Amino acid sequence: MLETSKRPKIVIVGAGFGGLSATRELADSPVDVTLLDRQNYHLFQPLLYQVATAALTPAEIAAPIRGILRRQRNATVFMDEVCGVDTGAKEVATTSGRRIPYDALVLATGARHSYFGQDGWAAFAPGLKSIDDAFALRKKILLAFEQAEMSASEDDAYREAQQTFVVIGGGPTGVELAGAIAELAHSMARDFRRIEAEGTRILLVEGGDRLVPSFDPALSDRVMKDLASLGVDVRLNTMVSEIGDGFIEAGDERIRAGTVLWAAGVQASPAANWLGVETGRSGHVPVTDTLTIHGHPEIYAIGDTAAHVPKGAERPLPGVAPVAKQMGIYVGRRLARLARGKAPGGAFRYLDYGSMATIGRNRAIAEIGGLHISGFVGWLLWGLAHVYFLIGYRNRLFVMLTWLWSYVTWQRGVRLITGRE
Amino acid sequence: MLETSKRPKIVIVGAGFGGLSATRELADSPVDVTLLDRQNYHLFQPLLYQVATAALTPAEIAAPIRGILRRQRNATVFMDEVCGVDTGAKEVATTSGRRIPYDALVLATGARHSYFGQDGWAAFAPGLKSIDDAFALRKKILLAFEQAEMSASEDDAYREAQQTFVVIGGGPTGVELAGAIAELAHSMARDFRRIEAEGTRILLVEGGDRLVPSFDPALSDRVMKDLASLGVDVRLNTMVSEIGDGFIEAGDERIRAGTVLWAAGVQASPAANWLGVETGRSGHVPVTDTLTIHGHPEIYAIGDTAAHVPKGAERPLPGVAPVAKQMGIYVGRRLARLARGKAPGGAFRYLDYGSMATIGRNRAIAEIGGLHISGFVGWLLWGLAHVYFLIGYRNRLFVMLTWLWSYVTWQRGVRLITGRE
Repeated sequence: MLETSKRPKIVIVGAGFGGLSATRELADSPVDVTLLDRQNYHLFQPLLYQVATAALTPAEIAAPIRGILRRQRNATVFMDEVCGVDTGAKEVATTSGRRIPYDALVLATGARHSYFGQDGWAAFAPGLKSIDDAFALRKKILLAFEQAEMSASEDDAYREAQQTFVVIGGGPTGVELAGAIAELAHSMARDFRRIEAEGTRILLVEGGDRLVPSFDPALSDRVMKDLASLGVDVRLNTMVSEIGDGFIEAGDERIRAGTVLWAAGVQASPAANWLGVETGRSGHVPVTDTLTIHGHPEIYAIGDTAAHVPKGAERPLPGVAPVAKQMGIYVGRRLARLARGKAPGGAFRYLDYGSMATIGRNRAIAEIGGLHISGFVGWLLWGLAHVYFLIGYRNRLFVMLTWLWSYVTWQRGVRLITGRE
Repeated sequence: MLETSKRPKIVIVGAGFGGLSATRELADSPVDVTLLDRQNYHLFQPLLYQVATAALTPAEIAAPIRGILRRQRNATVFMDEVCGVDTGAKEVATTSGRRIPYDALVLATGARHSYFGQDGWAAFAPGLKSIDDAFALRKKILLAFEQAEMSASEDDAYREAQQTFVVIGGGPTGVELAGAIAELAHSMARDFRRIEAEGTRILLVEGGDRLVPSFDPALSDRVMKDLASLGVDVRLNTMVSEIGDGFIEAGDERIRAGTVLWAAGVQASPAANWLGVETGRSGHVPVTDTLTIHGHPEIYAIGDTAAHVPKGAERPLPGVAPVAKQMGIYVGRRLARLARGKAPGGAFRYLDYGSMATIGRNRAIAEIGGLHISGFVGWLLWGLAHVYFLIGYRNRLFVMLTWLWSYVTWQRGVRLITGRE
């Protein structure tokens, strides 16, 4: 795995939770780490929906990768995009035309949206994975209100459509987005002269028979009640059959909506293609219990890139931040031991500390061990946990202040429509 | 001017310092104000260069126009772009196809870059007027460092070019940009592994014989010294003859530079075209001593849109924020008096409270009355004045905290490369 006489070269692709954790674990090891990412920042994706709904600025939930690794002298960061892996020559190929040799390779390239084969829907129902996505969504949402205000008293059907927001997918992201849009509409009510907050209609469409299915059914019920109290119209057991410019077809109904947002499905990044590995429909790379790909003990796949089925389990671990982080730490430590000629240690084991989702002000659910927490206490817990897991003191301080400010004033400060056409 | 039996309709175009001030002055008047802007936010342009150099986030120097005017019930805000004025029918035409009638019209549409007839240069030497400009510049500057790091040890000439930044124009904006880029390079020095901060070359090119010519010559000297201490190479009496992809020609020299920024000239927005008014080369609308255009006492032009030559003066007032703000207040008050059937008052008079510019940490110049202030005291004064003039307590608090954070840590927090290709 690290059978090299020189200082081993470790290439890590992706600076999300997985790749960054692996890099940091190698800080004191006699290795050279090259960390590659398409972006120059690490993004705290769990709060990305708050950028899309004008609650936080991108700078509050992102940190420059170089800044995070400033003191880690054995790590070199390149902003470059990987487009292939030569497993024979042990080289990674990038879109800038570089070939970077490795002794060990860690693929932590995350996930992207999946439209279940309906790729044409992407243009009408954007998803939320990157800061650019969040900017685009924020622009779309805020412009819809502007258009509604302008067209009020001219064209009522158009105004109604502009004030209709459809979120597709009832997982944590969909629930959080729908709640946040409802709160945004309320916070802006007094800013408009010709439209009413009550005129805003938010639909959450879910194919299954309950929201947030990864949680206990009691918490799904709680989410339903919380969303209802915010005025969100939840449609369960409803499949979307078509999405076009300004409308969706769901169940038997055609709904005019100025804004349609996709929170329904993800698929793994194309890492499997680079490796020539067979995958399931969602593109995740199957890994061994040490998170390496079959036949290549020097190549690791972690986080959303990997499909890791724990012993005795039926389904792979979910694509959430704690899984990616724990996998990154595991691989980092394993490589550190190998670099010092030690035994690499045992198989990867995931410790599930629980999960959380927020629906809005004073509303959240948390499932920790057997414990169910909701309401204000759940919301406080949610906030503290998310601030704690942010990278950097600056981001923690500013996110806390921004939330405090919004909580006290009921206002959103980041309502900027930016980005050229 | 407001000879109407009904409640007069006042249309204000542009929510910069001028338009916003005029709107606010009309808060308690028996008028209906329609404020039009292409953006949904008011932008504090004097700090825009700090967004371009990753020191501040856009949300810290911008505020949603609707939020600012929430309590002013006689003001309606439309996010729309004006494309013409029908002075006969007294209507404003917008790109969304609307026609908005007015009894009085205030044009406060600001300025844009001027490339002195060399419009082809715009693609290679972007300027800085909007948040989108600032994003583009930030991306360009940060990407140059990333490219330099990647190409180091591969192609030294390319690396050198990527680390060369040219700022064209030695006015306050050019000086502030050059100083801020120098500080950014220093703050990032330890974040790179293959390039050195000392390898960064910043050129400031000015056609005249001194920097910041609107200030006293002693302060121009001070700026020269401050820039030299930051390592900026200032070229006076140097005309730029050509700008292309990755190079400029200045004087007799051809200089390879990955990043060229334009801070040399502005011209007024196309308001003069809408009115069919003759202007000078820079496109400013000539106005009377009550800031109305000739022959139309119901149409006002203020701020960067107008060319107002005070009595006894030779040159028009400069295109700076205090001029726009005072003109806005003057026009607002005048219209308020007219709406109540009172005498409109006398001619506009500008009160010059002085001017300031900063070169970087602990370095600034200020000219207040006959007083010259520079160094740390000038810098502190500059900071306090800019925080004071920001709109909204939230922006004031966050800008102060961000500056304090950067001052103590020597780090820039907003080093995000965003925006799709």
